Amino acid sequence: MIYELYYWPGIQGRGEFVRLALEEAGADYVDVARGPDADGGGVAALTALLDDAGCERPPFAPPFLKAGELVIGQTAAILLFLGPRLGLAPPDETGRLWAHQLQLTIADAVAEAHDVHHPIAGSLYYEDQKPEAARRAADFTQGRMPKFLGYFEQVLARNRCGTGWAVGDAESYVDLSLFQLVAGLRYAFPHAMAGLEPALPRLVEVYARVAARPNIAAYLASPRRQPFNESGIFRHYPELDPCPPPALLSS
Amino acid sequence: MIYELYYWPGIQGRGEFVRLALEEAGADYVDVARGPDADGGGVAALTALLDDAGCERPPFAPPFLKAGELVIGQTAAILLFLGPRLGLAPPDETGRLWAHQLQLTIADAVAEAHDVHHPIAGSLYYEDQKPEAARRAADFTQGRMPKFLGYFEQVLARNRCGTGWAVGDAESYVDLSLFQLVAGLRYAFPHAMAGLEPALPRLVEVYARVAARPNIAAYLASPRRQPFNESGIFRHYPELDPCPPPALLSS
Repeated sequence: MIYELYYWPGIQGRGEFVRLALEEAGADYVDVARGPDADGGGVAALTALLDDAGCERPPFAPPFLKAGELVIGQTAAILLFLGPRLGLAPPDETGRLWAHQLQLTIADAVAEAHDVHHPIAGSLYYEDQKPEAARRAADFTQGRMPKFLGYFEQVLARNRCGTGWAVGDAESYVDLSLFQLVAGLRYAFPHAMAGLEPALPRLVEVYARVAARPNIAAYLASPRRQPFNESGIFRHYPELDPCPPPALLSS
Repeated sequence: MIYELYYWPGIQGRGEFVRLALEEAGADYVDVARGPDADGGGVAALTALLDDAGCERPPFAPPFLKAGELVIGQTAAILLFLGPRLGLAPPDETGRLWAHQLQLTIADAVAEAHDVHHPIAGSLYYEDQKPEAARRAADFTQGRMPKFLGYFEQVLARNRCGTGWAVGDAESYVDLSLFQLVAGLRYAFPHAMAGLEPALPRLVEVYARVAARPNIAAYLASPRRQPFNESGIFRHYPELDPCPPPALLSS
């Protein structure tokens, strides 16, 4: 099976959570929209599938994955599908449901990280919503980030297997996604993360272990890993991550 | 099996998507936090489970479902679990993945409907973010609502079974959730919905068919169905739904 991943070229975005799973498993895949138009790639290939009136079960938005005839949208659903096929999900149904539940909470954190720089509308530029973004950033870095990251730290601490992975006794796509969440938040909010990380030793350890996996290390060093930038989900705008952190919002 | 649903009392919120599935299936369930404290109910029961340090796999937030020893958080994951058990999911794995993918897109729409009145922070009151909410409402009603609802209309149109349900040839939890999405948006944004509905005949039909199901009709007429209000996800603030609709945002 050669998997086809469709996602906007030029950014890591939500596609990166899928890429990390495919890379770690050494799966055969094509990052379709990053390929040349002449070979059936490019954004044209992505929009052609989105706009295909003959597709009975169309995805709402990228990323989506083609696996044979199957087209799957929604990042967490793609990983629910891929996990067992790539050896990156627990063997039991209960474990798989737990992994998926964690992935959905990671997705919530990612959506909120995005909305920090786009609190009013994704259809507007950041420059059109800077005052609102500054207010939202204060709440995110002071309230939501500690809540999400503290939750994942607790999940790691309570895993009775004691192997340091998020789910059961083996690495799963959840660990890869936690790596990406930490990487993105470190890029976007270095000051806020520096303040939080001392209380998140297990999460920091998962990040390091994932980064050191041979396939992931090779991927991160390759041109396939696109750099973070200010077109993606995790954006670094210094004014949204002041040092010292802003005062907490009060109601 | 007696299912235990845990969700904040006093609002429909995300818990309602689970309630509708349990009600339609005639399942035995307890809406724990709406029960009296003296019987082990109330918010205390909910927070006790959230704060239980002995819970190896804690939910991040309500709603969550207890099914025997299993605790499941995340609305879409709860429905992924319940669907086949309640006869509200397709029989095949591909169909179940498609239903789940649609549910995740409904969840995205619900999150955005919430953020219209809370674009800056869930920790603040609406009154603390009214100007920002007005800007976000314009984008939501003019851009995002038509996009989400138009997508679901397209999904209904493309279902080759031709029975009018969202997935395959039978009712599923997706139809129940589409009912709730339409109900919530009609409550929150009656003017915007009145403008959109002529282009959404299949979605309007799903709403009507779900509302007429005997178990759902009985539920809606019962005190178990809490009214929409301005503490929930779908809130009606007239200033966010002007007539005529506001001009589109431009960047």
